[in-house]
Amino acid sequence: MAETHHVYKLAKRPTGTPTEEAFDYVEEEIPEPGPGEALVRTIYMSVDPYMRDRMRAGESYAEPWDVGEPLKCAVVGEVVESNGAGYEAGDVVTGEMHWAEYATAPASALTQIDPDRGPLSAYLGVLGMPGNTAYFGVNEVAKPRAGETFVVTGAAGAVGSVAGQIAKLNGARVIGFAGSDRKVEFLEDDLGFDVGINYKKVDDYGAALAEAAPDGVDSYFDNVGGPITDAVFNQLNVDARVAVCGQISLYNATEVPTGPRKLLTLIQSRATVEGFLVSDFSERFDQSARQLGQWVADGTIQYRETVTEGLENAPEAFLGLFEGDNIGKQLVQVNEYEG
Amino acid sequence: MAETHHVYKLAKRPTGTPTEEAFDYVEEEIPEPGPGEALVRTIYMSVDPYMRDRMRAGESYAEPWDVGEPLKCAVVGEVVESNGAGYEAGDVVTGEMHWAEYATAPASALTQIDPDRGPLSAYLGVLGMPGNTAYFGVNEVAKPRAGETFVVTGAAGAVGSVAGQIAKLNGARVIGFAGSDRKVEFLEDDLGFDVGINYKKVDDYGAALAEAAPDGVDSYFDNVGGPITDAVFNQLNVDARVAVCGQISLYNATEVPTGPRKLLTLIQSRATVEGFLVSDFSERFDQSARQLGQWVADGTIQYRETVTEGLENAPEAFLGLFEGDNIGKQLVQVNEYEG
Repeated sequence: MAETHHVYKLAKRPTGTPTEEAFDYVEEEIPEPGPGEALVRTIYMSVDPYMRDRMRAGESYAEPWDVGEPLKCAVVGEVVESNGAGYEAGDVVTGEMHWAEYATAPASALTQIDPDRGPLSAYLGVLGMPGNTAYFGVNEVAKPRAGETFVVTGAAGAVGSVAGQIAKLNGARVIGFAGSDRKVEFLEDDLGFDVGINYKKVDDYGAALAEAAPDGVDSYFDNVGGPITDAVFNQLNVDARVAVCGQISLYNATEVPTGPRKLLTLIQSRATVEGFLVSDFSERFDQSARQLGQWVADGTIQYRETVTEGLENAPEAFLGLFEGDNIGKQLVQVNEYEG
Repeated sequence: MAETHHVYKLAKRPTGTPTEEAFDYVEEEIPEPGPGEALVRTIYMSVDPYMRDRMRAGESYAEPWDVGEPLKCAVVGEVVESNGAGYEAGDVVTGEMHWAEYATAPASALTQIDPDRGPLSAYLGVLGMPGNTAYFGVNEVAKPRAGETFVVTGAAGAVGSVAGQIAKLNGARVIGFAGSDRKVEFLEDDLGFDVGINYKKVDDYGAALAEAAPDGVDSYFDNVGGPITDAVFNQLNVDARVAVCGQISLYNATEVPTGPRKLLTLIQSRATVEGFLVSDFSERFDQSARQLGQWVADGTIQYRETVTEGLENAPEAFLGLFEGDNIGKQLVQVNEYEG
């Protein structure tokens, strides 16, 4: 009898905030790698806010997941078997695979990792998609300059924590909104942010921002949206840049949320608001990987991870993102690295 | 006894849609030009939607008018007397003056016009601030390219009608939203727009736009805001550009209007939304004046004006802007040109 493993599949498309019922925990045979494919044993898998959008049907910036099919995610894993994929058993790779103990993938979808160069988990965070998102979102879209004021929401998350540090390296005054005192402490004490604001303890976002940013906001990296973003828009300086990276406060809405119309404020500020996707910069990931790798290696950039143990707990880890449970990158450790 | 003239002053700051009560029609002595000033007899004066914002107290992109003081506006007029301002009686000039039969202005605030080069009224429209706004808003912010789809709201107005024609010159497919069948006819028959949409006859802006712009929207010049803009945002293509020029649908609101939150759509489209003020391009007005003057002279660009006769009717002309009464530039003729 073939060996089995566990896989999470999309049970049904959730309405509003997903519950565990959206996830189907299935035991099935470990797949065989087809020609040119490798079988990969998952070590770490990533859960990310944008995945909420993949649970929807219809057009979105992320390809929708299919009901009844394995959920997809970025994985760091170990090659178990290579069927002409050009890998050897024991090679460590990263790529898009499944919420599962094992998955097969074609060679073209995998990138090899040198396990001696740093913690494997970092390849799903600061050295992976979230780090790249911060790197290009800050340097190509939000463009904070020396002496300017930079604001980031979701500041203690995988993207925000790196974005704020890169803005700081660019010489900006950096203000981060986050959802707990512990996170604010992390921002101010560990990451060197100038001011962290625990938005859950603040009645008036505008007043808190005005106090933290007395000279207004020149550059804004938005992961959250909603009323905090409204407050920031009211305090944008002339020629400010807004990078729209995510809107996590809206992802679980069942109807299109409403809020104050803000385009008029943009005439006053002549600000530029630009949405971006990290994938648009994929041709330059070599550059970002090299730079982020160096910053992490020499301690210029700090990062933290929240690691949930066990594939079975992946839905809980994912749903916790919307509660703000994580500090830094939220990961699920599915297996130990045996390398 | 000194001669008198009429001046409109701000009677009080209106709440919501202004009425005639906001305007005080005062008879007073014609002012004497101080040293370095000229006394100018108004021929045409301009009323513009942005003036609604000048009726408010507090910070705005336009300097607020003071209660009890003469209302300001762009004027084309004739120099009656020059007190060392470097002009001669009979010179035709333009500049910011008053809703009044006469005003004094320092030489530095006046620009001389050659009355033989074209209709004087055009210097308040296609050859003045509205033309410059269209020129820079299209070429520097909305940036329509050949083969792209360009949408403009307030399309039959002073700015929109020129913006659409410049977009057309750039090779774009041009769609304009306007508020009457007569305006749509003007757009399609006189200005060469590809499609005009009478939004007052359309139940579903999104459906009407999808039909007119089957390939989506690449470049959007917004003078109006509100639900039409919501519909356009839903159909922005990847890397679309939105130029926020005005939001006339919101100017009379007594509270900040609400609407669907749109930042999430910008991630999908990676669109850029940018507010602008024509004054930011003032160093390049020579360039735009030369180009617009040439286009008007050789018939490349068509324009229309709606002229209200008599200073006493200026408030009515101004308030009509918010009803969409005008086609093309709304002017008030205060005196005949006697040159």
